[in-house]
Amino acid sequence: MSLTLGYLGPAGSNTEDAAIKYDSIVTRVPFDSINKVAKAVESGEVDEGIVPIENSLHGSVTDTVDMLIHDILLSIRQELVLPIRHFLMVKPGTKLQDIRVVFSHPQALAQCNVYLSESLSSARPVASLSTSASVQDMLTSSIPAGALATERAAELYGAEIVHSSIQNDQVNTTRFVVLSPHDHVPTGNDKTSICFDFDADSPGMLLSVLSEFANRDINLTKIESRPTRTNLGRYVFLVDFEGHRLDSKVEETLGLIDDQVSMFKIFGSYPMSVSSSVV
Amino acid sequence: MSLTLGYLGPAGSNTEDAAIKYDSIVTRVPFDSINKVAKAVESGEVDEGIVPIENSLHGSVTDTVDMLIHDILLSIRQELVLPIRHFLMVKPGTKLQDIRVVFSHPQALAQCNVYLSESLSSARPVASLSTSASVQDMLTSSIPAGALATERAAELYGAEIVHSSIQNDQVNTTRFVVLSPHDHVPTGNDKTSICFDFDADSPGMLLSVLSEFANRDINLTKIESRPTRTNLGRYVFLVDFEGHRLDSKVEETLGLIDDQVSMFKIFGSYPMSVSSSVV
Repeated sequence: MSLTLGYLGPAGSNTEDAAIKYDSIVTRVPFDSINKVAKAVESGEVDEGIVPIENSLHGSVTDTVDMLIHDILLSIRQELVLPIRHFLMVKPGTKLQDIRVVFSHPQALAQCNVYLSESLSSARPVASLSTSASVQDMLTSSIPAGALATERAAELYGAEIVHSSIQNDQVNTTRFVVLSPHDHVPTGNDKTSICFDFDADSPGMLLSVLSEFANRDINLTKIESRPTRTNLGRYVFLVDFEGHRLDSKVEETLGLIDDQVSMFKIFGSYPMSVSSSVV
Repeated sequence: MSLTLGYLGPAGSNTEDAAIKYDSIVTRVPFDSINKVAKAVESGEVDEGIVPIENSLHGSVTDTVDMLIHDILLSIRQELVLPIRHFLMVKPGTKLQDIRVVFSHPQALAQCNVYLSESLSSARPVASLSTSASVQDMLTSSIPAGALATERAAELYGAEIVHSSIQNDQVNTTRFVVLSPHDHVPTGNDKTSICFDFDADSPGMLLSVLSEFANRDINLTKIESRPTRTNLGRYVFLVDFEGHRLDSKVEETLGLIDDQVSMFKIFGSYPMSVSSSVV
């Protein structure tokens, strides 16, 4: 029986690129929100799901992070880090100098505004609902148009790429996670993601939790205090660290942390894709 | 001589609301990017600037945070926390049941998708470059249209508000900061924002820095490891804490931290608007 993988669509999205890299022969099913991908995995409609969780320019993808904190019982089974590149594409035959409007998601237009002001200054930026939708907006435009989208979107919709990698920042990577009913078995080179919060405020509480890691030489790879949905002044802590939750020293550490915090959730353990400790 | 305040425009943006709350009689000057607001303050074109830095749903506004880390020499002089509300507005006289398209920035459309699917299911969402631009798109639309934008935008462009506060999450607040050549004098109830990073990785380094705060009973109000622009695996730490950089125990703490880190930058000290320690 063939496996199915839900992903944040539409077809041609960056997440579809990540889905193909994760498993090129699985049956891919697009959903129009991160929440719907997760619900489809929970209900068994698909076997696993893949969504973005962190971008090198924009930080955490909060829809994914908030869902892991508050809503779902799924685990992170895998992480993938991919470069994000924007391509300028046109209807086959349209010349660069004829382009009068450029469609894309406002974020992609902003990420390419240096190229647009230097090479396409006579074209007007027009918003689309997604980068994939911008290719369709461009193809049906009555005036000569361009679109900023993925290479895969150009391929899917039959657009012609004029310029590659036109984003302002040449280093723009996104970390994707595969959500599954179970996390990954230990491989010897793993990472674990957890979250926790405290009932009361005290300068020593976070310090005490972090010292449990330091005392056992466990490297953290991420720490973030994330505002709760209900109050800008209250925070949930997100911590990623090296090691699998079934490793004995990690198991001991997590047990000691559980005793010190109010809410505690393990998002999962999974093979490390970027070996990079921060503290 | 009248003071001038740059803000992230266009007129009718949430940041203009914050600018009015900060100083209602100052001359306001809109800029089309966070970076341009900062450059205008640096060059003296305006006296101060106001930009968003953190949202309760979406986390840090990374353009502002990255600029503070890497680019500018300005200080944070004030913070303001405002509720973000979306209003459905139309051309005066248009009836709710006649609306066929709804314009807004894709993020605002997403934040109101529950209302849209329940109360405007026959209307098609259409992307605009900003919420303010969506009001103009709506007013010039040839088919009956709505727009999702601020109350101020309705007032500015003469649109009629049909429904107020239609966003999915009723608690949606944004923290804005005023950028200035100098930070604020001590008031006795202040906050300070800093950033730092480390040359090497060691589980004990962050712990050691945080213990300098805990040892002196200084409450942290935020901690975040932010990916650097050049590498997803390397991080800069952002920390907000209670107290002014000129308070003697803060001054002592910052001196000790400076000795332990690689890069170190004080964004500024300013009166606390949300009294909320997290650790």
